[in-house]
Amino acid sequence: MKREYMAAAAQLGPIEKDEPRSSAVSRMVSLLHEAKAHGGEVVVFPELALTTFFPRCYTEDETELDAWFETQMPNADVQPLFDAAAKLNVGFYLGYAELVLQNGKKYRFNTSIIVDGSGGIVGKYRKIHLPGHFKNEPWRPFQHLEKCYFEPGDLGFPVFDAFGGKVGMCICNDRRWPETFRVMGLRGAELVMLGYNTPRHYPLAPEHDHLQDFHNHLCMQASAYANGCWVIGTAKAGLEENCDLIGGSCIIAPTGEIVAKAQGVGDELVIAKINLDRCRELRENVFNFSLHRQPNEYKDICAPK
Amino acid sequence: MKREYMAAAAQLGPIEKDEPRSSAVSRMVSLLHEAKAHGGEVVVFPELALTTFFPRCYTEDETELDAWFETQMPNADVQPLFDAAAKLNVGFYLGYAELVLQNGKKYRFNTSIIVDGSGGIVGKYRKIHLPGHFKNEPWRPFQHLEKCYFEPGDLGFPVFDAFGGKVGMCICNDRRWPETFRVMGLRGAELVMLGYNTPRHYPLAPEHDHLQDFHNHLCMQASAYANGCWVIGTAKAGLEENCDLIGGSCIIAPTGEIVAKAQGVGDELVIAKINLDRCRELRENVFNFSLHRQPNEYKDICAPK
Repeated sequence: MKREYMAAAAQLGPIEKDEPRSSAVSRMVSLLHEAKAHGGEVVVFPELALTTFFPRCYTEDETELDAWFETQMPNADVQPLFDAAAKLNVGFYLGYAELVLQNGKKYRFNTSIIVDGSGGIVGKYRKIHLPGHFKNEPWRPFQHLEKCYFEPGDLGFPVFDAFGGKVGMCICNDRRWPETFRVMGLRGAELVMLGYNTPRHYPLAPEHDHLQDFHNHLCMQASAYANGCWVIGTAKAGLEENCDLIGGSCIIAPTGEIVAKAQGVGDELVIAKINLDRCRELRENVFNFSLHRQPNEYKDICAPK
Repeated sequence: MKREYMAAAAQLGPIEKDEPRSSAVSRMVSLLHEAKAHGGEVVVFPELALTTFFPRCYTEDETELDAWFETQMPNADVQPLFDAAAKLNVGFYLGYAELVLQNGKKYRFNTSIIVDGSGGIVGKYRKIHLPGHFKNEPWRPFQHLEKCYFEPGDLGFPVFDAFGGKVGMCICNDRRWPETFRVMGLRGAELVMLGYNTPRHYPLAPEHDHLQDFHNHLCMQASAYANGCWVIGTAKAGLEENCDLIGGSCIIAPTGEIVAKAQGVGDELVIAKINLDRCRELRENVFNFSLHRQPNEYKDICAPK
């Protein structure tokens, strides 16, 4: 695959609790076709893109919880997206809830995969920085139970040979932690893909609600710049189950500049030409890691908690 | 000292090669008085604030080089600034070139100190991320010989009890590295002070010259946010020895918001009320390090080069 091509953030509007996966997949297939029509070769879908953002609901019923998870990927519901990718020769990033059965025990992850233009999975990531809380907190207008429902990812921050270069993944809250991007940057990432579901209201510090869009872009732009990599960040947006999710899906150049951005909070394709060779403008100069980094001074960052 | 007070970035316009230290100090004393008149209790001066930014000039003459350095702090030239601080009860951060004689060998550092309202030095830092190059490169319109003239700092990133809380320091290019702020954040920094001399023209990637102001603010805002700390960043600005230095001195809240910013590129006081307790809005919530960080996944960051 070449180093310069059209890539897209395929923002999704809300997915209500009772919307079947087949419907969400159908919306994503439409966006994939739209991307193709504009010359797109790679598309980034959101975090947990097949269902509503269920960590906002508390349940102790394991059957109810498991119903949000995929035990196979692809599966019958998602197969049309894989088929469309292969037919159109368009790769994609997809976030979903993953249930793993191992030695009679269940492990649940907030997962993303990348799928290439032949429709094959070429990389998997499991979310490491799980936000939220461990227990039901009824005082909140909605829950954020990722720490309750998911295990921390156990695959590290891998970087894959894909889409013409080195591609890394992260998910939602991972983007707020500079370490996420630095680890991938050190592994040569030229393009980092991520999806997010970010409520505008943050119950612990509501005085920052008006800053959600600013913070979303600030952390992605700064990490694109500090690592000289492209970032494509895609929201599930809009009023979902009465919870207001920010949009702002965007494509960010290695300079940290937003080169394309969503205009609304519904299903929307955001597309731009990206050139992976532009990473060199940063990585061979101001962020030449081998010349300028001073890892002996960073030990506190890796010290156990 | 209380936790809420008026703090200032005291931007300096150009200092030409032949301007004596006494003149630069006199300009800083004026800004200290101006700060006091506005209720200011802490003032941040730029990097290498006593002289022109001499790393832009190549010399093999050790006597000529040493003339830019201070062997004592305070010394006769700088004493008026210390005296004014004590008289006015206003603390400050000051950047200067430091020459250390030890066992018959010379060590040169790009250094900053903080001085409290009694006029006493309470902390010292030596710049760790030295930008630029090791040898004269005559193709450049101006040199950037920090790697040639200075040793990398040997004091780590210390955090001091000062100005009502925990205060860290860094210098210029340090601000572009998220590790700088993270190490200080882990040590509890509530306020990070830094000075810079940043040419608008970057000879290695001149296609980014128009982004210098954006990058300056992006890295400081993102690191303030990611560590929930105040940042005061102060430029030496304007056309100095025919080299155009950016301004943009500013005071940044723990939310990453710029709350005060310079309007020009000359001597200018930028002042705002800061409240160190606001750090908690981030550090007890979205950036609660002990709850959310995953240092086991960060090992690459500390690995030797």
